[in-house]
Amino acid sequence: VVVLLAGGTGGAKLARGLLDEADELTVIANTADDVEIYGAHVSPDPDLITFWLADRIDERGWGLAGDSFHVMDGLRELGDEVWFNLGDRDLALCVRRTRRLAEGARLTEAIDEARRALGVHARVLPMCDAPVRTHVRARGQWHPFQEFMIRERAAGPVEDVELRGIEAARPTPEVLEALTSADAIVIGPSNPVISIGPILALVREAIQQAPAPVVAVSPLVRGTVVKGPTDEFLAWAGHPLTSEGIAAHYAGLLDGLVADERADSVPTLVTDVEMADHAARRRVAREVLDFSSALAG
Amino acid sequence: VVVLLAGGTGGAKLARGLLDEADELTVIANTADDVEIYGAHVSPDPDLITFWLADRIDERGWGLAGDSFHVMDGLRELGDEVWFNLGDRDLALCVRRTRRLAEGARLTEAIDEARRALGVHARVLPMCDAPVRTHVRARGQWHPFQEFMIRERAAGPVEDVELRGIEAARPTPEVLEALTSADAIVIGPSNPVISIGPILALVREAIQQAPAPVVAVSPLVRGTVVKGPTDEFLAWAGHPLTSEGIAAHYAGLLDGLVADERADSVPTLVTDVEMADHAARRRVAREVLDFSSALAG
Repeated sequence: VVVLLAGGTGGAKLARGLLDEADELTVIANTADDVEIYGAHVSPDPDLITFWLADRIDERGWGLAGDSFHVMDGLRELGDEVWFNLGDRDLALCVRRTRRLAEGARLTEAIDEARRALGVHARVLPMCDAPVRTHVRARGQWHPFQEFMIRERAAGPVEDVELRGIEAARPTPEVLEALTSADAIVIGPSNPVISIGPILALVREAIQQAPAPVVAVSPLVRGTVVKGPTDEFLAWAGHPLTSEGIAAHYAGLLDGLVADERADSVPTLVTDVEMADHAARRRVAREVLDFSSALAG
Repeated sequence: VVVLLAGGTGGAKLARGLLDEADELTVIANTADDVEIYGAHVSPDPDLITFWLADRIDERGWGLAGDSFHVMDGLRELGDEVWFNLGDRDLALCVRRTRRLAEGARLTEAIDEARRALGVHARVLPMCDAPVRTHVRARGQWHPFQEFMIRERAAGPVEDVELRGIEAARPTPEVLEALTSADAIVIGPSNPVISIGPILALVREAIQQAPAPVVAVSPLVRGTVVKGPTDEFLAWAGHPLTSEGIAAHYAGLLDGLVADERADSVPTLVTDVEMADHAARRRVAREVLDFSSALAG
């Protein structure tokens, strides 16, 4: 079993590649980006991963392929400023999750039901069932994560990051079991601070104790990030936007790094980590698995 | 100012007629049919009235004209049994209301904002701000109102009706002020028990003390009901499905009844009360207002 830690697009693309290349895949997804809006519990990262795994991701890079936006249109017609865009079928998924949570289901169960309903065979596990919410301070103000990303257009510099609720949160039994029994643990090319950070805050020790080799895939492609404000957050964390910066951020965890530039502090598989199409996603996944096997010796 | 007490379709059609015929119209709407579903606060009667007043009612008899149902389709795709159908733009309206209530707005304010957003000039007032929920006992079981109507297809006989929350509810200041200052009070041709009943449970005394004449429009057309299970509920209330039965149900309140059949106990304007098209809705509205003026002497 390959266990992948993932946040948004980068991690989700690698998950899709691993779905074809690994015997069995379990994705542990960040839920610190979750947001309650429109009466619904939105879990952007688990859903993005699920949509990718179901081959249902829309070309725009988020949401369900071909989804309509009539509820959002309706809100605008009523005078609302719609800052968080959510498709109609996407909303249905979130509304259903909210109902299941209200009925007493764990987030783990609600997300598992959704991936089954979408015909996904890999498991998608939220990192925890309790609410953890990333807040970002920028220009003197604290912003809930989605508001920072969308309303504030992720305008840094980032002054501080808080994972509110993290002290009370515990990794789920499913997450701990997946890590313990993993043949390979892969940290996906998602934002190391805000996507992978919350997961590691919960399972750092569990990963260190797990027998499987731990390989991170760098989110940097030719020295820059494909999507999202990784640079702002890495800068706040005090690490440069380089393979070595990524390796330093994951210090004490990694057996290897997959990146397009060598890191000094950790064995690096240097390869093109851009995953622009399905062939590239499979190739990177294959290389990650082979590298992991080699590290396991 | 004409004040209309209304529930669903019959009352809403008369409201649309009165909108053209009265100088000013305020509708007091039943909210005991409200239901929390899909993370949203659905107010079927106030919304139906608002859609009629905005000329936005769909030909199917409920919901917004031309609305799509993609969220419901999404829920079905995920395996949900969708028993309560709600259009996408309709859901947007309800989601917005839920948010406003969560922000501390009164239901009165949230419903007022919606009718303004839809360009309706008449006021639509919920009977109260507190939650009142009709429950119906049939075949030995209690059912929340919408579940009885939809899931149970209103299958009687009705054994009991409870307006849960009614003791704690109070008519709003807007409702009391509207009744006190009304020139005419009209009880619309909605279900006397489950649509008008909850309103009267709150404002019976206020209506009796109001100076305006009180005229009811019978929901019976040629001895039967156009829509909905009025017969089941009137039977439970112990009244026959006749003008006299309607008059008896409203005993102590009426100065006059508008119906297609004379009642013995109250002055009756005998006319065709069917409102199949816009001309008929205006005609009935006009006749109701003239009758009310005549009763006021």
